[in-house]
Parts: sequence; structure tokens; C-alpha cells
Amino acid sequence: MAKVPDRYFKVDPWSIVEEGFDPGRSLVSESVFSLANEYMGVRGYFEEGGSVESLLGAYFNGVYEEAPTAGSAYKGIVRKTHFMANAVDWLYARIWIDGERLDMGASDIRSFRRVLDLRKGTLSRELEWRTSGGKTLRVAFLRFLDMENPERGYQRISFVPSDFSGKLRLEIACDFNTLHAGRKKRMWREQKKGFGDGFAAVMARTATTGQALFSGFSWTANRRASFSPMEAELFAGFGIDLPLEEGEESVVEKSVCNLVQRDAGADAGLLWSRGIEALESRGLPAFDAAMEAQESYWGSFWESFDIRIDGDELNQQGIRYCLFQMQEAYHGQDPANNIGAKGLTREAYNGHAFWDTETYCLPFYLFTNPRAAKNLLEFRYRTLGKAVERAAMLDCGGACYPVATLNGEEACDLWQHASLQFQPSTAVAYGIAHYSQACGDLDFLYGHGAEMLVQISRFLASRGSWTDRGFGFYAVMGPDEFHMMVSNDCYTNYMAKKTFEFTLRTLEEMREKRPDSYAELAARVVLGESEPDEFARCAARMIIERDGETGIYEQHEGYFGLPHIDIDSIPTSDFPLYGHWSYDRIYRTDLIKQPSVLMLMFLYGRDFPEEVKRANYEYYEPRTIHESSLSPSIHSILASELGKSDEASSFFGFATRMDLDNYNRNTGEGLHATSIAAAWMNIVYGFGGMRSEGGELSFSPSLPAEWKGYEFSVLYRGARIRVGVRAAGVSLRVASGTERVEVLVYGERRRLGSAPLVLPLPAAAVGERKGG
Amino acid sequence: MAKVPDRYFKVDPWSIVEEGFDPGRSLVSESVFSLANEYMGVRGYFEEGGSVESLLGAYFNGVYEEAPTAGSAYKGIVRKTHFMANAVDWLYARIWIDGERLDMGASDIRSFRRVLDLRKGTLSRELEWRTSGGKTLRVAFLRFLDMENPERGYQRISFVPSDFSGKLRLEIACDFNTLHAGRKKRMWREQKKGFGDGFAAVMARTATTGQALFSGFSWTANRRASFSPMEAELFAGFGIDLPLEEGEESVVEKSVCNLVQRDAGADAGLLWSRGIEALESRGLPAFDAAMEAQESYWGSFWESFDIRIDGDELNQQGIRYCLFQMQEAYHGQDPANNIGAKGLTREAYNGHAFWDTETYCLPFYLFTNPRAAKNLLEFRYRTLGKAVERAAMLDCGGACYPVATLNGEEACDLWQHASLQFQPSTAVAYGIAHYSQACGDLDFLYGHGAEMLVQISRFLASRGSWTDRGFGFYAVMGPDEFHMMVSNDCYTNYMAKKTFEFTLRTLEEMREKRPDSYAELAARVVLGESEPDEFARCAARMIIERDGETGIYEQHEGYFGLPHIDIDSIPTSDFPLYGHWSYDRIYRTDLIKQPSVLMLMFLYGRDFPEEVKRANYEYYEPRTIHESSLSPSIHSILASELGKSDEASSFFGFATRMDLDNYNRNTGEGLHATSIAAAWMNIVYGFGGMRSEGGELSFSPSLPAEWKGYEFSVLYRGARIRVGVRAAGVSLRVASGTERVEVLVYGERRRLGSAPLVLPLPAAAVGERKGG
Repeated sequence: MAKVPDRYFKVDPWSIVEEGFDPGRSLVSESVFSLANEYMGVRGYFEEGGSVESLLGAYFNGVYEEAPTAGSAYKGIVRKTHFMANAVDWLYARIWIDGERLDMGASDIRSFRRVLDLRKGTLSRELEWRTSGGKTLRVAFLRFLDMENPERGYQRISFVPSDFSGKLRLEIACDFNTLHAGRKKRMWREQKKGFGDGFAAVMARTATTGQALFSGFSWTANRRASFSPMEAELFAGFGIDLPLEEGEESVVEKSVCNLVQRDAGADAGLLWSRGIEALESRGLPAFDAAMEAQESYWGSFWESFDIRIDGDELNQQGIRYCLFQMQEAYHGQDPANNIGAKGLTREAYNGHAFWDTETYCLPFYLFTNPRAAKNLLEFRYRTLGKAVERAAMLDCGGACYPVATLNGEEACDLWQHASLQFQPSTAVAYGIAHYSQACGDLDFLYGHGAEMLVQISRFLASRGSWTDRGFGFYAVMGPDEFHMMVSNDCYTNYMAKKTFEFTLRTLEEMREKRPDSYAELAARVVLGESEPDEFARCAARMIIERDGETGIYEQHEGYFGLPHIDIDSIPTSDFPLYGHWSYDRIYRTDLIKQPSVLMLMFLYGRDFPEEVKRANYEYYEPRTIHESSLSPSIHSILASELGKSDEASSFFGFATRMDLDNYNRNTGEGLHATSIAAAWMNIVYGFGGMRSEGGELSFSPSLPAEWKGYEFSVLYRGARIRVGVRAAGVSLRVASGTERVEVLVYGERRRLGSAPLVLPLPAAAVGERKGG
Repeated sequence: MAKVPDRYFKVDPWSIVEEGFDPGRSLVSESVFSLANEYMGVRGYFEEGGSVESLLGAYFNGVYEEAPTAGSAYKGIVRKTHFMANAVDWLYARIWIDGERLDMGASDIRSFRRVLDLRKGTLSRELEWRTSGGKTLRVAFLRFLDMENPERGYQRISFVPSDFSGKLRLEIACDFNTLHAGRKKRMWREQKKGFGDGFAAVMARTATTGQALFSGFSWTANRRASFSPMEAELFAGFGIDLPLEEGEESVVEKSVCNLVQRDAGADAGLLWSRGIEALESRGLPAFDAAMEAQESYWGSFWESFDIRIDGDELNQQGIRYCLFQMQEAYHGQDPANNIGAKGLTREAYNGHAFWDTETYCLPFYLFTNPRAAKNLLEFRYRTLGKAVERAAMLDCGGACYPVATLNGEEACDLWQHASLQFQPSTAVAYGIAHYSQACGDLDFLYGHGAEMLVQISRFLASRGSWTDRGFGFYAVMGPDEFHMMVSNDCYTNYMAKKTFEFTLRTLEEMREKRPDSYAELAARVVLGESEPDEFARCAARMIIERDGETGIYEQHEGYFGLPHIDIDSIPTSDFPLYGHWSYDRIYRTDLIKQPSVLMLMFLYGRDFPEEVKRANYEYYEPRTIHESSLSPSIHSILASELGKSDEASSFFGFATRMDLDNYNRNTGEGLHATSIAAAWMNIVYGFGGMRSEGGELSFSPSLPAEWKGYEFSVLYRGARIRVGVRAAGVSLRVASGTERVEVLVYGERRRLGSAPLVLPLPAAAVGERKGG
């Protein structure tokens, strides 16, 4: 599984730097230089347009279109799918000198530098343009998305002529004439356009879903410029004749306000008024003030949650890039938002959220931003009704959470996934347990949490079946998507068992501690008197098959009997298998796409003794081809735990730099937003040995041989714990917040305070330096 | 599984009669009154058009359109599908009196009678029309499709005015403006139109596949009529002013020539010339002569192969209707033709041929028309190249025959069938064995047959896998389509084993008896030296799981462990399950759609002792919901063999009258052409106890309690054997052909000649009369 980096950007601890422009890498760079603030996202495209290969992509969380699926008419198969709509190019700019247009693909560009500054949260670009008339102009662009006032974006374009004075033609606008990358279609219908004193605005609706988006901007220049409004369909802006003075800077600053109204039934007139008001009253803060606030936001983020890696520049840059992107993609602004597999960086995967949210992303938020973690779960609560409808479509009771969704409805148009995979539902239950235990939020648990738990358990009880052997699930697909229509998938059954058990425990606690809440819940979900007993029977008699001799859990019935294939015998040119093998062929052997039994041993690590994990790891890992960007980190974490430090490092290899180094050669399709979360887990859970399920936090840090040391922070019960690991020892302290907190370190209960607790690093926890 | 008849037509031994017209049954009647002659087919629609619900459907074998499928882009999933095109309405007629048009849905119709005459092969209709002006006109229509000159069709329309003389306006034409029933689309592009002395013609091409069809007609009238050509896009005909004389008959006869050119690359100019020549030279036989030939054709068919049932008028009519439709759908005219699941009676199932051809239809032809049987296999030989391409798409060697096809390419757009079902391939091998053994055609076997056998075996060897337990198939779907992605499906494995064995036996015989043919074959298919050994190993170590104690073969790995569902517990309103259950739900239990293990015990009956068949029948039948029209007959045949005469009769119940009585309420969608073949098997193999696999023909007749007796004929080794069964005894004789032939009767070898061999009917072979 050797993956090879395609290194291009400069290595720097706090920024991503492109020196000189490679048009062949344009789409990858656009993805890497994406910005987002949860509310909206924009690819790092060149705002001035031109002939370079580009996807002019700008997206808004929860703004989507729908289309009928072409699947069969069988019952329960989704009839329409949703996909994130490419929206407004609010950075639109066109630049001319003497009628010649700046075009990165055609102009004579003498120098080029693009920088994503992780400390400031800005993307900047500087270039020197030599016109065919021999004039030289330095052009600088800066953009950022306001992290605290998320409907706001800012753009600054500045010009310094080296050898001439004169005039420059600049056109700036908001433009809805964008195309969906896959469907090659414009998604918007114009509703209204308007101009005012120094501002322009346009409002449009999505064609099929009728969601409204207002996009307007005001602008200022540091020189007296003549200008006039420009309009076209779905387009409003200004044409500006900007004076240039040799050696001096001419600057235009654009403050943008983008307002989304997701509800198609809502009054768009109000939306228009809100937008115009923001523009008219100059309600947008000045560029400099906004930029100052932006720096302060990111400064405070890094102060709290920076991960430092000593002696590994590549991973240092990589993990900071991951933290930055995670925070940008989502930080709990709005419970109506979720995290698409590609964040807001491209239309691939349709912007859909998957089980990745609860399984891969949630831990990052649990331990840096509990409000965000809660909001992710509130998203599921807000869409509980859709999950109940979906369960009914599948002839079941309760709630079945979608495999892929934008608005809570199932939008996965592959029935074999949408109808057979239940890890999204059990992941929600897992997330509720994880959140309520880690954050101690019993109000949520006994309210929205318990309601979801009952509905999920109800679904599981109705979807499973009884035989003489007990209760189990038939015709399912587990997280290993290389086996389909299997019986008693170990992951599915085990997760269901845990879901039932946690639901029952929660109900019991409620009955005892909050009888009123219990009564209210029971009434709301019409809890049958015998339902808890049924859940208990299902849990108690859940079929979990394990080889008594080897301790190996059988992934599903019959897995052990499947033909074996030696991964090393597969030519590397066959990867990815989905692209090179006949579809059915991936289902015929014991090959595994991504962890399933091992995923269980990660999620419920405390349920399984080390020797059982070892046996299962040694059995399943060699059968796994990691054809999911989510796979290697989980293996790295388990390898760390099992003292397999070489393997741990090797799987970690590309976790932090998957997109920076375009390991999978598909970063042009957008960032791997959820794998980025796995990189965080890989350090904190993997090397840091943190475990968080079941209500107690524990650490068993180890030190990869390649590193001198590393530090990370986690927020736990109000205390920010800073963990530092070096060969000399492990240090843990409460860096801020609640003064004291109890955790386990290497299995022993420890009370942490502001003074560092320093412990020696166990010998087994130090990686052996290769060849050292 | 009680199915309820919707009886509508009059019961008559030699015809299907509709007395009075029920517009609510229009589509069903159109299907039932379909005519075909293998080359073309036409529904029983009213040629005069009008407002009655109607599918104006006319079809040509192998004339189809194609369309991209909307499936996913995974490798091996078909990207385009084919579907039979609705073609030319060559019966087009419009009738006016005094500007008032005849319309069965709106006119005042005083009497109505429609008759399909099975002895003449004609469809006729008589009605009395009372115009709003108070005129009464008797109108009679007659149509037939020439069975021996299949490009020819005939239509006769006659008028007798009861109470007036005057003129009638008649327009007759060939009209390509037909619509595909599902896609609501016109499929044709006009190429040419022309008129001549008493004839009109139009030629068109299918839009996507470019196949050409010439349709022209000449006409005569028994009165001097004025007329003029009429043309429109895709339409050519004549408007005729026909004189009417009170009490006398005015007749127009139309002789039609429809010529298909399937190859889009062929010169359509030649096709046009051929067509015009036939029309110009009056090359079409006169109506009366053609009709005489038609009667003689059918007379000779019935003389040879009529099945007589004594004491059961319903089944007598039913079985003759089945024989008639089978002969019409296919009789071996052209090896480029095959049998669609709906014959040429409607677009449902896209006109595709399935494994039904070799498994259900072939026996009828084997024992009535060996040339037709051979041609069905030649169809597979002609499309061997496509099957080789398909196997390669599936990353396999050899030849994989399509699940559904019109031209040899896989056209099934459900990947779960197209990629996982191999019964079409093993059915072809079975058909080759069955044909060559029953008909003794070693030239075919050692030529085309052996080449297909090697390629099919090669496919099977490459698609299967080895484990410690032996050789088997993983990720397949057997004929029971309620279980998918299973391992070691008993039917699939067993059929593969038999395929390997028959291939090896054939190769050995060839090497011994026809070394030149063997060498030629080996060179043509590049037979590897070790390939036969590999086939032998696969066969010898094929995994076939059977419970040693009960003798029950496990349908596939894990089947015995599936949750059980009691069929009687399913509300009848849930049927058909495909329409009422969530798609995945049908896969979660031990419910079976149609026979799988039992199918094996029918196809290879001689391999399994009676007690094994009994155990398996008693285990599997109660788990089978027969959600395929192919299912009940197989169960009836096995029930007969096992002496379960009540069950045999009950399953037989609707075999012969499935469409006449619209048992499945979907006859409007077209006739169940392949189930019709199962009705023949149900009598000959079921009650007649005939067995034909393995080279020897045997009979063990029994007599259903409801019948006084029955007779059928089979052609075997050149002898037509007539079998008669009555309570008084069984009689077998050679009725024509080869003078003497050897068969087994009740297990004993008997030599049959022209004098009847009469044997007593064993006591166990007489059904017990219910309540008797």
C-alpha cells in the first residue's frame, strides 16, 4: 500500500506556500487553497478568471439542488438525490490595462507567490505582470472569510505599477453564472438585482429547491476612481477606472455580504431587505477591522489547540493544515450545518455528510469545542423526522439515519448502500453516548439524545430478525464495503448491541433521576411497555461470532470461508480497485476495503483485551487494502496501542499531508475533509494514546521514533489539558479552564492541575528508530 | 398462493371468442388476440383506431433501439440497454360514413364478436355499427400473418349495409408513427416513401440503431372505387371511396410486405428495391391463396402436435392456446431470432430473451421441431463473440451469456442480475447437451456446441474460486432471485459441475471419434494443454453442500441459518412482494421466489433418488412464493413425480390459462410467452412423466383425477410418438416418421412401433378425485 507523495508546496510551519505557478496543478492548488467558515466555502481559484484550468467553486452549507435518480422503481430505493449547488462567485474580478486582460494562463507573469496563512486565516497572492506593451505591474490579492460573522467575506486587490502611471480597468461583481462541476449546469434563477451608493447586489434562487441567496458587496478605493454599475443576468457589479501612479499602491477593497435563506417557502423580500440594510448602512466592518478580528480569532484558536511536533517539519505543517481546515469546515455555528466529505471545497460526494461525522469528526470537536460537538448531534435531532420517514420506507419502525445527506433525507442513490448500511444510525447513538459521557451533558442526553436513542433502537429491533441462534441482522453491508448482503456483520451487530444497551441504561437513569423527563419522552415516542424488554432481549441474544481458539471475530457469517487473496499479488496498477476491477469482483474474496471488526476495537477499545485486539489486528490488517482515506489512521491508532510503532508510523505517513501532497491524486476533486479529522485522531488517540469512550479519559502516550516530541491540547470537563511527550518524559497539565481534573495515565488515575504532572515515558512507548 | 382467474372469453376447444366488447379489458384482449409468426408480431388492436384504451403495438424480432443506462460507472456494469422497438402499424385503417368515424369507444355498436381461430391462424372481428344518421352497417375484419412467408401479412375489411346504399370512406396505410409504450417516444426516422399502381410503401430507420424496415402494401377491392394516395411523415397509404350496396358485401383486401434489415450498415436502397419489387410484380399471393396456405400450415401442425384433454374444456382450450402461441412466437425460421419473455406481444421486458429460452422453451422445440431447437442454440453461437466480450468486462475468461438480450449483448441494466447470475451460461450448456442427446446431432455438438462448451467452462473456471474446501462460486445470485451475493449457490455450483463434466466428455469423445474436429476446435479456442485438467479439477472438487441426515441440499451457504418466515403469515395484499416490500426486505429471510435446488432436481432428475427429491421438495416448496410465472409448473412436475397428485393439479391450475384468465392481472402487459412453454412441459413432463435428459427418453404417465384422459405427441429420433393416457391404460405408438424407436416406460425399456403399446396405468398414477 505504498502511497507516494506529490510534493509541490513549500514546507513551512505556519503557512502553505506556492512559489511559481504550475498550471498542471491548478485544480489541486485550488482545493488546497480553499477557504471556508462553515457557513460558506470558496476554492482558491483566481478571481480574475482566465484560461487556466479552474473550477470556480463557491459553496454554502446546506444549499443544494435536487434531481431524480435514475434507479429502479423498487420500494425503498431513493427516487431523488440532493447535491450541493455551486453558488455565487463573490470574488469576481476582471483586470485590464490598455485593453489587455490579466490571464494567468496567457499573460507574461514574471513572479508568482500564493500563500495560505494559517495564523491569519487569509489567502494572498502576489504576481508581477508584464503587459505586451512592456508595462510592469505588481498585483496583490487577499481574501478571507469572516469566522465570526460568517455571512461576510472580504477581498482586497492592489496594484503597484513599476514603470508607468495611467489607468487600469477593474470590474468587480457578484456573479451567479457558475456551473456545477459534474452536471455542467447553472443552478440559479435570478430574483432581484439592485445598486446603491457604492454597493451592488443580486439575489437568486436555486432552480429545483427554491433556496434563496443574497449576494452583495460594497467597495472602496484609496484613489478617486470613476465607475459605473454593470449588470447582466445573475450578475451585478461595477466597472472601475482606477488611476495608477508609478511606484505607488492603488487598492480596491470589497466587503461582501452573502445571506442564505434555505427555506424555499420563506419570504425572499425580507432576505433582500436584510442584505440591502447591511450594505446601505455600511453595516459591514471596514476591511482592516475585519482582518484584525480574523487574526485574533485564529490566534486564540492556535493558542488553545495547536499541535506541535518537534523534529518533523512535514507533519508539523500537515497537522496544522488539518486543524485549520477542520475548524474552517465546521465549528458549531449552526446546528443546521454538517460536514460534507469534501467540506465546502468541491461538489464531489455532492456535499453529503456521512457516518464520518460522528465516527471520525466528532472526537475533534468533543475535545476542542463541545458546543460544536453538540450541534452536530442537534443536526441529527433536527432531522429525526426524516430518519423516521426513511425507516418507514424500509418497512421498519423507528429512525434510520441516512448514509449520505444534506438535509436529513437519504440522498445516496446506490441502493446497496442506502438500504443495507446502518452504521450511520449506530454512529449517531455512539456519538450521543460519546458526547454525553465526555462532556457530561445530561440535559442533552435525557432530552434530544434519549429520543434519538429510542428511535434508533426501535429501528434496529424492527430491522433485525430472530433465529434459533439469537437476534441478528441479515442482508446488510457493514463499514467494509467490499462485502454486501451479508448476515450478522460483526460490526453492525455489535454496534446495535451497544446501542440497545446504552438506550436502556439511559432510560433507566432517566426513570430514576428524572422521572418527569422519562414520562415526557415515553409519551412523545409512544414507548411501548414491553419495548425496553425487547431491546434488552435483542442485546442479550445478539449474535456475535468469534473463533474461541484464535479470539478472532468473524467479520460476518461465512467470511472465514471466503477465498483468500494475497494483497501483494495484486498489481499496483489495479488500484484503486473500484476503477480497475469489475464491480462484482471486489465482493468475491476476503479483501477488506476499510476497518470493520478493527473499527469496533477502536470505537469500543475498552471492551477488548489487548491480546484479542492483537489477534484481530494481525488477522484483518493484512486483508485490508485501505481503499478509503479513513482507513490508515484507524490502523495507525491500533498499531500504536499494540506497540507496533513502525506500522503506526507507516500508516500515519500520509494522514496529515494527504491533500498537501496529493497522495491519492484526487485532491483536485476537493479536500478530504473527514480524513483530515482522522489525522487529528491519529496523533491524539494514536500516539497520545487517548481513549475517551465510556466516561473516563485516559492517556498512554508513546513517541514515534522520528519525532523529538509533540504537544497537543484537549478540553475535558472544562479543563484544557496540555499533553507534552518527549523522550525525557510525558507531561500533563491543566493549561486553562477548570482547575483540576481527573484522568487515567498509563492506566493509573491521576489528578491534573496547573503544575505539570511529569512521568517517564515507558520504554515500550518509544518507537525504534529505523536502522538506528 | 391462491390465484384467482378473471374469466372473460368463451370456452371453446378451438378458438378464443370474445362476445360483446368490454373496454375495461381492452389491453388484456389486445394481448390475448396477438398474432405472430416469429418474424413479426402484432397486438389484437382495433385497426380503425379510436378512443378505446389501446397499445397499438407491432414488433419485429430483433428490431430494437438502444439507450444509455443511468447506472453507476463501476466497471462491468452495462452502460446501455436495448429494447424492442414498437414498429409500423401496417393494419392502419380509418372508416367514415357521412363524415362520421367508426370508433369502438364512441360509436353505437350493436353487436360485437372477436375470434382467434386456432385452426386457421386468423383473427377476425364482426360488428354492427349504427351511425348517428340511423344507418346500419355490418363490418368484418380479418387478419393473419403468413407462417411460411413471414414478411407477409394480410388484412381484409368488409362492409355490408343493412339498410342503405351509398359510399364509405376508407383510409388504409402503413404508419410508423407508433409510440413505445414505456418511453412514449416515436422510434423511427423516415427514409423513403413511394406509390405505385395499387401500392404504397414507406421505409424508415430506428433512431439510435439505424435498423431499416420497409413496409408496403397492395390492395384490391371487389368494387370499382375511386382512390388517391395519402402521405404524411412516416406514413403512406390510400384514401378510398368505396361504394356500398344495400345487403351486399363490399370488400377491401390488403396484402402487406414488411422487410427488415437489421444491419445498420447495409444498403437500404437494396431493401427498398426488394420491397417495391414484391409489390410491383404483384409478387404477393392473392388473399385467398394465402389464407388457404395458412389453414393448411396450422392443420398440419395440429395433426402432429395437438394435445387433447378429455373431460376438461378449460385446459383443453388453454393448452391449445399455449401451443398456438409458442409456434407463433418461434418455430426456428431464423437463427438470428430468439424468444422474448413476452414474445412479440408487447414491449414489457424490452423484448429480451432470458435463460427461459434454453430452460423452459427448448424442450417444446426439441420434441416437436428439432430444427427450431437447433436454431435457438445457433443464436447463442452467433452471439458467442458478445459473450466473450461480456466475460472480459467481468474480468473473466471464456464466454458469459447475458441475463437479458436482444442481440447477444448484455442488456440487463440491474447490475445485481447482470453481474451475478450465471444460469444463462449454464443453461446454454444444458441446452447443448439436451439437444445433442435428444436429437443425436453430433455434428452440431462437435462443432458449434463444443466451442460454446469450452468457452462457457472457461468462464466458469475463471469466475469461480478455490478455498481449502474446494472450488466454488462467490458473490453470485442463483435462479432464486430473493438471495443475492451469496457463496456457493447450490444451483450455480451444480450446473457448473455438470457443464464442466459435459464439456470434458464431449472433448474426450471428439478426440477419440473426430480427432480432426478436435484439433480444429483446440486451435480455434486456443485450448490450453492443462485446461481440461483444470475443468476436471473444478468439477471434482465442486462444493455442493448437503445435510447428510436430511438429504436436503443447502440452497447456498448460510441459507439454513436464515430467519424463517411463514408464507401464510404474509397478508395477501403484500403480493407481489416486489411491489409492496422494501427492496432489501425480500433478501432477509428464507423466502424463495422460484425454484432453485428444486430446479436442479427437475433439470437433472436422474441424478437424485426419489427420497432426496421428496425431502427437498417438502423443505423448499413451503418456502417458495412462486413470484415468477415460471415457478408453479416446475413444482407441478415434481409433485407429479412424487405422487402428490393434488399438489400437481393445484400448481397446474393456472399454467395453461395464465393469460386467457389473466391470473396475474398483467396480461395487458403482454403474453407470458415463456411460461406458456412451461405449460407444455407441465403436461408432457408432469402428467406424462416424460424425462429426456441424459440421452434416453422415458415416460411414467399419470392421470389427474379431474381428467378422463389426455394425449400428446413428441418427436424423438425421427419418430412421432403419440402417447394416450386414460384410466383404462396408457397407450404409446409411433404415429409417423421412423418406424420403430426405443424408450423407457415406467422404467422398462420398450420398443415402440405403429401398433399401440398398451399398458395398465399403475394405481399410484391415478389422481384421487377430491371428495370422491
